[in-house]
Amino acid sequence: MHRRNFLKTSGIAALPSLGAALPFTGLAAQSGQAAQPDPVYFFFDGPFYNPKEFIARLQQVNQAAPIEADFYGGGGVVEALEKKFMAITGKGAAIFMPTGTMANQLAIAVLSGDNTKVFVQDTSHIFRDEADAAQSIHNKRLIPLAPNEAAFTLAHLQASIKSLDEGEVFKSGIGAIAIENPVRRCDGRTVDIEEIKKIAAWCREKGYKLHLDGARIHLASAFTGIPVTEYARHFDTVYISLYKYLGAPGGAMLCGDKAVIDKMRHLIKVHGGTMYQFWINAAMALYHLEGLEERLKAVVKRSAELFTQLNKLPGLQINTLKSGTNIFELQVTKEIDLAKLRDALRKEYNIYVGNRQGNDPVKITVNETLLSRDTQLMVEAFKASLAKARA
Amino acid sequence: MHRRNFLKTSGIAALPSLGAALPFTGLAAQSGQAAQPDPVYFFFDGPFYNPKEFIARLQQVNQAAPIEADFYGGGGVVEALEKKFMAITGKGAAIFMPTGTMANQLAIAVLSGDNTKVFVQDTSHIFRDEADAAQSIHNKRLIPLAPNEAAFTLAHLQASIKSLDEGEVFKSGIGAIAIENPVRRCDGRTVDIEEIKKIAAWCREKGYKLHLDGARIHLASAFTGIPVTEYARHFDTVYISLYKYLGAPGGAMLCGDKAVIDKMRHLIKVHGGTMYQFWINAAMALYHLEGLEERLKAVVKRSAELFTQLNKLPGLQINTLKSGTNIFELQVTKEIDLAKLRDALRKEYNIYVGNRQGNDPVKITVNETLLSRDTQLMVEAFKASLAKARA
Amino acid sequence: MHRRNFLKTSGIAALPSLGAALPFTGLAAQSGQAAQPDPVYFFFDGPFYNPKEFIARLQQVNQAAPIEADFYGGGGVVEALEKKFMAITGKGAAIFMPTGTMANQLAIAVLSGDNTKVFVQDTSHIFRDEADAAQSIHNKRLIPLAPNEAAFTLAHLQASIKSLDEGEVFKSGIGAIAIENPVRRCDGRTVDIEEIKKIAAWCREKGYKLHLDGARIHLASAFTGIPVTEYARHFDTVYISLYKYLGAPGGAMLCGDKAVIDKMRHLIKVHGGTMYQFWINAAMALYHLEGLEERLKAVVKRSAELFTQLNKLPGLQINTLKSGTNIFELQVTKEIDLAKLRDALRKEYNIYVGNRQGNDPVKITVNETLLSRDTQLMVEAFKASLAKARA
Amino acid sequence: MHRRNFLKTSGIAALPSLGAALPFTGLAAQSGQAAQPDPVYFFFDGPFYNPKEFIARLQQVNQAAPIEADFYGGGGVVEALEKKFMAITGKGAAIFMPTGTMANQLAIAVLSGDNTKVFVQDTSHIFRDEADAAQSIHNKRLIPLAPNEAAFTLAHLQASIKSLDEGEVFKSGIGAIAIENPVRRCDGRTVDIEEIKKIAAWCREKGYKLHLDGARIHLASAFTGIPVTEYARHFDTVYISLYKYLGAPGGAMLCGDKAVIDKMRHLIKVHGGTMYQFWINAAMALYHLEGLEERLKAVVKRSAELFTQLNKLPGLQINTLKSGTNIFELQVTKEIDLAKLRDALRKEYNIYVGNRQGNDPVKITVNETLLSRDTQLMVEAFKASLAKARA
Repeated sequence: MHRRNFLKTSGIAALPSLGAALPFTGLAAQSGQAAQPDPVYFFFDGPFYNPKEFIARLQQVNQAAPIEADFYGGGGVVEALEKKFMAITGKGAAIFMPTGTMANQLAIAVLSGDNTKVFVQDTSHIFRDEADAAQSIHNKRLIPLAPNEAAFTLAHLQASIKSLDEGEVFKSGIGAIAIENPVRRCDGRTVDIEEIKKIAAWCREKGYKLHLDGARIHLASAFTGIPVTEYARHFDTVYISLYKYLGAPGGAMLCGDKAVIDKMRHLIKVHGGTMYQFWINAAMALYHLEGLEERLKAVVKRSAELFTQLNKLPGLQINTLKSGTNIFELQVTKEIDLAKLRDALRKEYNIYVGNRQGNDPVKITVNETLLSRDTQLMVEAFKASLAKARA
Repeated sequence: MHRRNFLKTSGIAALPSLGAALPFTGLAAQSGQAAQPDPVYFFFDGPFYNPKEFIARLQQVNQAAPIEADFYGGGGVVEALEKKFMAITGKGAAIFMPTGTMANQLAIAVLSGDNTKVFVQDTSHIFRDEADAAQSIHNKRLIPLAPNEAAFTLAHLQASIKSLDEGEVFKSGIGAIAIENPVRRCDGRTVDIEEIKKIAAWCREKGYKLHLDGARIHLASAFTGIPVTEYARHFDTVYISLYKYLGAPGGAMLCGDKAVIDKMRHLIKVHGGTMYQFWINAAMALYHLEGLEERLKAVVKRSAELFTQLNKLPGLQINTLKSGTNIFELQVTKEIDLAKLRDALRKEYNIYVGNRQGNDPVKITVNETLLSRDTQLMVEAFKASLAKARA
Repeated sequence: MHRRNFLKTSGIAALPSLGAALPFTGLAAQSGQAAQPDPVYFFFDGPFYNPKEFIARLQQVNQAAPIEADFYGGGGVVEALEKKFMAITGKGAAIFMPTGTMANQLAIAVLSGDNTKVFVQDTSHIFRDEADAAQSIHNKRLIPLAPNEAAFTLAHLQASIKSLDEGEVFKSGIGAIAIENPVRRCDGRTVDIEEIKKIAAWCREKGYKLHLDGARIHLASAFTGIPVTEYARHFDTVYISLYKYLGAPGGAMLCGDKAVIDKMRHLIKVHGGTMYQFWINAAMALYHLEGLEERLKAVVKRSAELFTQLNKLPGLQINTLKSGTNIFELQVTKEIDLAKLRDALRKEYNIYVGNRQGNDPVKITVNETLLSRDTQLMVEAFKASLAKARA
Repeated sequence: MHRRNFLKTSGIAALPSLGAALPFTGLAAQSGQAAQPDPVYFFFDGPFYNPKEFIARLQQVNQAAPIEADFYGGGGVVEALEKKFMAITGKGAAIFMPTGTMANQLAIAVLSGDNTKVFVQDTSHIFRDEADAAQSIHNKRLIPLAPNEAAFTLAHLQASIKSLDEGEVFKSGIGAIAIENPVRRCDGRTVDIEEIKKIAAWCREKGYKLHLDGARIHLASAFTGIPVTEYARHFDTVYISLYKYLGAPGGAMLCGDKAVIDKMRHLIKVHGGTMYQFWINAAMALYHLEGLEERLKAVVKRSAELFTQLNKLPGLQINTLKSGTNIFELQVTKEIDLAKLRDALRKEYNIYVGNRQGNDPVKITVNETLLSRDTQLMVEAFKASLAKARA
C-alpha cells in the first residue's frame, strides 16, 4: 500500500495523535482547538490543508476575485496560471499537467524524439519514483549517473556518453538529459549552478536537450539565492509541482518552447490526463505563488535564527546539510528521550516533529508554517519540552 | 482549439449572454440575481456549478460530515466512493481514475491481455473521442461495428469475428468487446438490454471479456427503468463518469473483479494519472449520488409531463428519440423565430435552450435543473416566449 | 496453422500428387523425372525452386561471378542489390529488410512520425495480412478505405480525412497514406495510375507522405506498360518483394529518400531483423532481376496468345480480370470434370493448375514457367486433357 | 558503420591479406590455392564459409539427404531442427527465430509478462548489444548487475531486488532474469554452474522466470564438461545461435515450454521476422550439429596440447582465461615483432592470428579449423615464424 509506505518512510505516521488511517484529518481537528496557536509542522514543504481549511482558503480566493473556470484544462484560471509560469521560468509556453510524473515523462519523451537514451541522476524521481514509466510506456532507456549522489557532473555525463559511443556496436541515439533540483531522495540537496551551466553549455553544443525536474525549484532558489529564472534558462523544459508548496490538491506545470509544449495537449489526452476541470488546482497555486519568494526568504532567515538559538540548548543539535535546502537533521543526546520531546512539543505547543528512521537523525523540514510563530516562543517551547524529555 | 470545437458543436457558445471566453461563469453571475428563479438549463446532463456555487456546495458537504482526504487516490472519501460504486455496480472492486478515457483504455487493455482486436460501436467515445489512444498507446486495434448506428447486435459482432477468422492468415487474437450505453454521439440513445444479454452470454461462452462505457449509465437506467446493477452485471468492467451528472470537476470510476482492478493502480501511475488528492472529486460525486436515482426518475416524469403540455402549444414540437434518454428534439414552425424564442426564455425566465446545428432540430437535454421549476410555470414561460417569437 | 491455412486458400494442397505435408518437395522430385518437360505452374508469381534446384541456381550465379558476402546486411552483394533498386525506383536510398511486413510497417511508421492515422486499402496486405502490427507494435491506427475494393480514390481519401477533421474533438494527426499495387487480395488487380497521380499531387500539397506496397510492382508494370520508375516516383517510399518473382528465399527492399532510409538500419536491429548474412537472398534477387522486364513482357504476350487459343476449345473459358495482372479465371462447362482435367494436365504434361475455392472459378496465375513451353504444345495438352475430362 | 566497427574491434580487418572491403572473401580465395593446407583461423567460434564454400557445403548436405523446404518457417527441415533443439535443451518446444536479438527480447518479454524489471549481466549482449530494444520496443527496464563482471551471483540479484523493494514507493514488478553464458563481451568466460543452480532455485521459489542467452552454449559445455541439457534445465527459455559455430547464414533457436513458445510465432510475425523460407539456415545448422560435441571436445584437447607446446617456445606466451572457454591471450616478448609473426604464420602456413587492440594481449580464439592441422606442424609453424619475427 503506497500511502502506508510513504507514511512509514516519512515517520509522520508514528505521531501518536495523528490517528490511524488518515493522520492529516487529525491535524485539522486539532488546529481548530481554541487555545492553540496555529500549528508549526516540521515536515511538508509548504502549507498543509485539511479539507475544511482547504475549502475555506478556496472560498477566500474566490471572494478576492471570482475564479474563472477552465474547460478540459483550457482557458480561465488555468490559462492565467500558465501565463504566470511562463513569466516565472522565462519560457515561451506552459501547460498544466495532472502530475509531475506525466510532466517529466512527456518532457523527456518529446525532447528525446527517436533517441532512446535519457540520462538522469541515480537518485532522481524519474529514475526511482515513476514506476519505470520511461521504459514501459515511453520507450526510453534511463541511464542513471552518479550512484547515490545528489548530482552528476559534466564529467560523469561525458564519460557515460563516451563509454556508450565506444562500446556500442548498435547505437540507439542520445536523447535528453534530466536534472532534478533540489533532489527529494537526497533530502532536498541542490545541484550546483556552475555545474548546471557547464552541462547546459556542452549539451547545447552537442544538440542534446535538457529537462529540469524542478518540482521544488523555489526551495532551491530560496536557499541558494539564485532566481528560478536563472535556473530555468539553462533548460529546454522545466517542470514545477503545484502541490509541494503551492497548496493545490495536485497538478504540475511544464514550461518550455512553444514548439515543444504544443505537442503536449494531445499527449496528455491519449495518456488519459485530460480531466474536465482543473480550476481548483490552478486557483490555489496562483494564490500561493503570490508573495511566495518573500515568504520562502523569510523561512530561510527565520529557520537560521531559530536553529542557531536551539543549538545553544543542551541535549539537542540541529545540523545543516551540505548543499541542502529546507531539510535539516536533528540529533538529541542520550539523556533526551526523543519520543517524549516530540510528545511535549505537540501536546503543549502544537509543534510537530517527525520521527527518526531507524538510527538516522530526525529530519526537520522547514516551511511557511514556521512564520506563524515567534522565534522566541519556539525556542521556549523547545526548552521546556527538552526539560520534560530529560530523565 | 478543443474547447471552441465543443462549444461550436454543442451550440452553447451561441447563447448571447454567455460571454466570450468562458460562458459558464456568465451563468453563475446571473443566477445570483435577486428576482430570478434558479436557472433551468436544457443542456448538460446534470447540475452545473460555477466556481462560487461549487465552493458553496463543497462547503455544505463538508459541514454535513467532515470530508476525509485521500492520499494519492488512496483512502478517505475516495475509498468510500469506491465502496459506493462497488455496491452500485455489484462488482468486487472499484478504483478512481482521473478520466473516462483512462478508465476505458485501461479496461480494454487489461481485459484484452495480449489479444489485439477490440470491438466497439463505430459511434462510441472509445472509437471517436479518445484520440486513437487505443492504437497509439495501448497497442490495440479497434474494430468499429455498425457504422453510424447507436448499437451493434450480436449478429454484427459474430459476423465480424467470423470474417476475421476466415480471412486472416496471421491472427492477432480477439480481445475485449466494449459497449457504450447510452451513446453520447447518438444523442444519448441506449443499447437494448436484450441484445446486451445475448452478446454477454455469447462472449462468456467464448471467453471474450466485456467492458461497459457507462459514463452516463444512470441516465439509461432512469429512462429504461432497468437498474444500473442489471446493466452492470453483464460486463466484466464498468466505467461511470463523475462529472456528467455527479458534480465532480472530473474523474471516473472503474469497477470490476478484484483481479482486474488490482492491476489498475500501477497503470494509472505509469500513465501519469496518480494525482496527489482526489477528495474533492470524490466528495462531490458521493454527495450527488445520494438520491440520484429518485431525482432522475422525477426528471423523467417531469419532462414527459412538460413536453406533453408544450406540444399542445402551437408553433412548437418536442419529439422523443427512439431508444432515447434525456435528449429530445425541438422543432418550431416557420412563424416562430427561434432566436427570439431562446432570447425570451433566457431573459425573462432564466431558461436556457441551446441553438440548432445547421438545419438540425434543436437538442433539448433534460436534467435535474428542471426539478427546480414548477411545470406550469415552465409551460407559461414557453407560451409567453412563443408569443414574443412570433413574427 | 498458417501454412495449412494458406494451402487451403490457394488450393495448391488439393493437388493429389503433391503429398500431404510439403507439396513443393513433391514438385521437386517430379521435375527430375527423365521424360518430362520443365513444369508449367499456373500458380506462383515467379519461378519456383525446390532446394535442389535452388542450390543449383545459386551455384550457377556464383560461378558466373563470385558472390561477395555481406556482413549483417551491410556491403557485398546486398549493397549491390540496394544500388540496383535505387535505379529501379529512382530513389536516393534503398535497404534490405527481412520481410515485406517489416518494410511496410517501418515505412508507414517513419513517414507518419508522431501522427497516428494511416490510410490504407481495406483489402491491402497492411490491413489484412500483417497481424495488426501497425496498431500493436507501431502505434498507428489504420483507416481502411473502399471496403472490399482493390483501390480507393482521391475522393475516398479526402472524404475520410474531412470526416475525421469535422467529427473529432481530439485529433491525433494525419500520418502516411499507403497504396498496395497490384493488390494480392484482389487477385492482382492494379490501382489506376491516373488516380495515383491525383492522390500524390494532393498529398504533396497537404504534406502527407505516401508509401507504395509494391511487393509485386513489376507485375503491374508488365501488364499496364507503365514503368516501375513511373509508379515509384509518386511515392515517398517503395517496397518490393524479393521472393514473389525474384527467386530469393525471402527478403524485401525498401527504397526512398536517404533521410528516411537512414533511420531504418536501427529500426531493423531493434525489431530483431538484423540477421548475420543476407547474401543468398540478394544474389538470387539480383540474378532474377536481370532481364526480368523482358521476361514478364513475354509472359504477358504468351499468355494472351495461349488464352485466346484455349478459349476456342469447347468446354473451357479463361477470363481476364478488370484491371488485372497475371491472374485469370478459368471456368469449365458442366460436361468437364475439373478434377480429371487437372489430373490429366499434371500427369501427362507436367502442367499444374490450382483447384477452385468453393464455387469460385479456378484462378490461373501466369508466370515465367510459361515461357519454357511452346504455346502450341500447351494448347494440345489442354485439348487432350479436356477430352479425358469429358464424361 | 557497424561492420567497420566490429572489424576494428576484432582486429580482423588489420590482417593485411584480407582485402579492403570484405576480408572474408579474401580468405575464400586463398583457401583454394593448391599448395596450401586448409587454413587455421584463430578467430571465429566455428567454421567460416565464403559463398563458394557455403554453396558447396549446402549441396553436399542436400545430396546426402534431400532437404525439405519450410514454408514461412513452418515444416520441413526447420521443424526437424526445432525437434533436434528440443532434444538438445530438454525443452517441450522450440522455434526458429531470425536473430538472437529477437530470441532474447521476445523471451524476456514473454517471461516477464506485465512486470517491467529484467535483470541481466552488465556485460551481456542483451544489455550492451541489442540497441536498447528491451526499453524502446518491449517496454522493459533492464537492470544491469555486476558491472564489468562476466557473471552476477545470487547475492547480487537478491541485493538488487531487495533494494528495489525497499526503495520504491511505486513498484513495477519483477520480471525475468537473463543470464548469458558464455559471455561474449568477457572473452567467452562462463558463468559458474553452481551459481546458476542457486539462482535458479531461488527464482523458482519466488516465481521469477529465467532465460539463458546461450548463443554459444556448446562452447561453455565443451570447456566445462557440463552437458548443454544440464545448463538448459535451470532455465525457462534457452536461446542458441545458428551461426556462431553452426554454419548457418543467420538465425537462432528459442526453446522452452510449449505455452511460452506457442506465443512466439505471432510475435515474430508482428515484429516483421516471418521470412518466406529458412530451410537453408536450418539445413546448415542441422548438418553442423552432427558430431559437434565430439569436435568441440577435440578442439579443447587439441588446443591444450598445442598451447602447452607453444608455451615452451621462447618469446611467446599463451594464457588461459579464468573461467574461459575458447578464447586465450597471446603475449610476445619485446624481441618479437608481432606484425612479422602474424605475417609469417599467414603467408607461409595459412594460419591466421588476429591483431591486438591497443596494448591488450592478442586474443586467440580456437575453433574447428584447428582440427585440420597436425599439432606438431602447428608448433613448427610457430617456431619458424617466431624466428622470422625476431628482430
